[in-house]
Amino acid sequence: MASVQDKPRYRIAVDAMGGDHAPGEIVKGAVDAAARGNVDVLLVGDPEAIKEMLPSSVPDTLQIVPSQGVIMEDEHPLEALRSKPRASIIVAAGLVKAGKADAYVTMGSTGAAMAAGVVALGNLEGVDRPALGGPFLGLAPRTTLVDLGTSIDNRPSQLLNHGILGSVFAKVLLGIDNPTVALLSVGAEEGKGNRQVREAYPLFRQSGLNFIGNVEGVDVPLGKADVVVCDGFVGNILMKFAEGMGMAVVEYLKARAPNGSEKMVGELLGELANLTNYVEHIGGGPLLGLNGVAIVGHGRSKAPSVTAAIDMACTALERGLVELMSRELAQVRSRVGSEGQAGEVA
Amino acid sequence: MASVQDKPRYRIAVDAMGGDHAPGEIVKGAVDAAARGNVDVLLVGDPEAIKEMLPSSVPDTLQIVPSQGVIMEDEHPLEALRSKPRASIIVAAGLVKAGKADAYVTMGSTGAAMAAGVVALGNLEGVDRPALGGPFLGLAPRTTLVDLGTSIDNRPSQLLNHGILGSVFAKVLLGIDNPTVALLSVGAEEGKGNRQVREAYPLFRQSGLNFIGNVEGVDVPLGKADVVVCDGFVGNILMKFAEGMGMAVVEYLKARAPNGSEKMVGELLGELANLTNYVEHIGGGPLLGLNGVAIVGHGRSKAPSVTAAIDMACTALERGLVELMSRELAQVRSRVGSEGQAGEVA
Repeated sequence: MASVQDKPRYRIAVDAMGGDHAPGEIVKGAVDAAARGNVDVLLVGDPEAIKEMLPSSVPDTLQIVPSQGVIMEDEHPLEALRSKPRASIIVAAGLVKAGKADAYVTMGSTGAAMAAGVVALGNLEGVDRPALGGPFLGLAPRTTLVDLGTSIDNRPSQLLNHGILGSVFAKVLLGIDNPTVALLSVGAEEGKGNRQVREAYPLFRQSGLNFIGNVEGVDVPLGKADVVVCDGFVGNILMKFAEGMGMAVVEYLKARAPNGSEKMVGELLGELANLTNYVEHIGGGPLLGLNGVAIVGHGRSKAPSVTAAIDMACTALERGLVELMSRELAQVRSRVGSEGQAGEVA
Repeated sequence: MASVQDKPRYRIAVDAMGGDHAPGEIVKGAVDAAARGNVDVLLVGDPEAIKEMLPSSVPDTLQIVPSQGVIMEDEHPLEALRSKPRASIIVAAGLVKAGKADAYVTMGSTGAAMAAGVVALGNLEGVDRPALGGPFLGLAPRTTLVDLGTSIDNRPSQLLNHGILGSVFAKVLLGIDNPTVALLSVGAEEGKGNRQVREAYPLFRQSGLNFIGNVEGVDVPLGKADVVVCDGFVGNILMKFAEGMGMAVVEYLKARAPNGSEKMVGELLGELANLTNYVEHIGGGPLLGLNGVAIVGHGRSKAPSVTAAIDMACTALERGLVELMSRELAQVRSRVGSEGQAGEVA
């Protein structure tokens, strides 16, 4: 049997100040992860605020790294990077750049997480903007949607990158051997869709990915493809729509549960919430295409999701997510040629 | 009390050949509507196929209008219009053009319904492509989404048209006084979204519509706006995604219903199906912006949905949907000026 020592020991920087429940729930989740003893957690934030939230006994595997300020969801990420150079997310990404941490984790602004990551670590070759992707629906826990909202108005070559990165994500983090990849569109046939999807289709066909064509909205919850590729605008709306549907169904059924069935209905509804808001449940997803490991979680994450995100960072490091993405990007580029090259953002 | 005679008597052309369950369920739904005596139904299709499906006693209010062929979902609508000039949908739209029917109803190809309508009846001034919209989610039965998929790669002025048409739809068919109108985007603030939405935002602000800004995916099932405006690509994916979620939740919960609770769970699930596939339930929606009344239903519609679609056509006629849309389009255009003018399709 492998001993704990056989596993590499990773150092994860955690943004204590980002997210709706920061710093309380973030600190709690980080302490829980650190307490298990197989990971070092660098908790980045306002030391006073963090200390207030710490339990009486703090594990040795956790240390505080001070920062000043936090970049909020409604701020322009690049402007905020300049105006708050000591903000928690910047310090967290900087720890990775400096080799003091192996990855960073945040439940704060996705835009800020991405901007800080790109500035500190850069993107993989051929990627001009990282994507966020992963399973977002407990109903289809093996279906990875890319992009969930970091990248909008994508060119066809960027959609192809989503497919490559999503495919590696599915292999590495979900253990799927030869993941099927599909474009999300309004009809199954080639030629159906908006201009973006229609132009991306031939690139996917040439890519060497396990491309199965277009899927429609109905196919996503039914898990028809392992990797579903879409513009971040569409992916973000879908992800949040699923969440809203879960909330609305819960309200509706709660109000109509027959007398005496409240407990059972309550249990079903609890499951339903997990089924429709999987991102919160699994802790988040890596910024795909970044030259480093960064996990961005849901803003509403509580402690267990924070712990799960830290675990995901360790898994990504252990299995070489970034190296595999880099290799696959180069391989597909060699097949597709210049058409599939990611140029400058339009 | 008003007598039946006080209500105008409408003649509705029904495409008997379009839809997954054509002609059987279409004929059944049309017969049911005609049997109520207050509407004349012109059933358009292959006379032999229709007669086989007719009950032994056919109401006087129903007559058959022969056609040849049917345009399928996977055909290119304009090419099919040329190659099958006597197809059921073309004959149905032609009856309206010729003044022999007041509206037409189809469960067949949306593209064909639209193409046939535009050729026969034309669009309202300022509209270059009709939209399909209406409540699509039983969870939010008062929320109209426009467009559901007829119109893709919309210019900002087309999104504005979706807002105008959706607003009139909500007033006329849902009885909402001053409907709130929102753009579907990835963040509530102005400036969030793809280029299309960002450019449409100022047009909406000037429009005189009851514009409440952007809503996100989560807000749709929660009914935060009366009218939610989006590109048909996004709307179609959302509508079908909701359907898929309903199907997946039903499968999941069925498999996990505790012993003895099957009946109750079954009832809840039946409701859930209606909640997530409202389009089938309500029968469909009008082609908004067409210079005439045309109702397009879900391809999977069965008889009750066909009857409901016929009812919707009568309501649209009775309340002057087309005249009100025409007036509102002109009023908004006078406020927004040339920016909001719909030009040629890019």
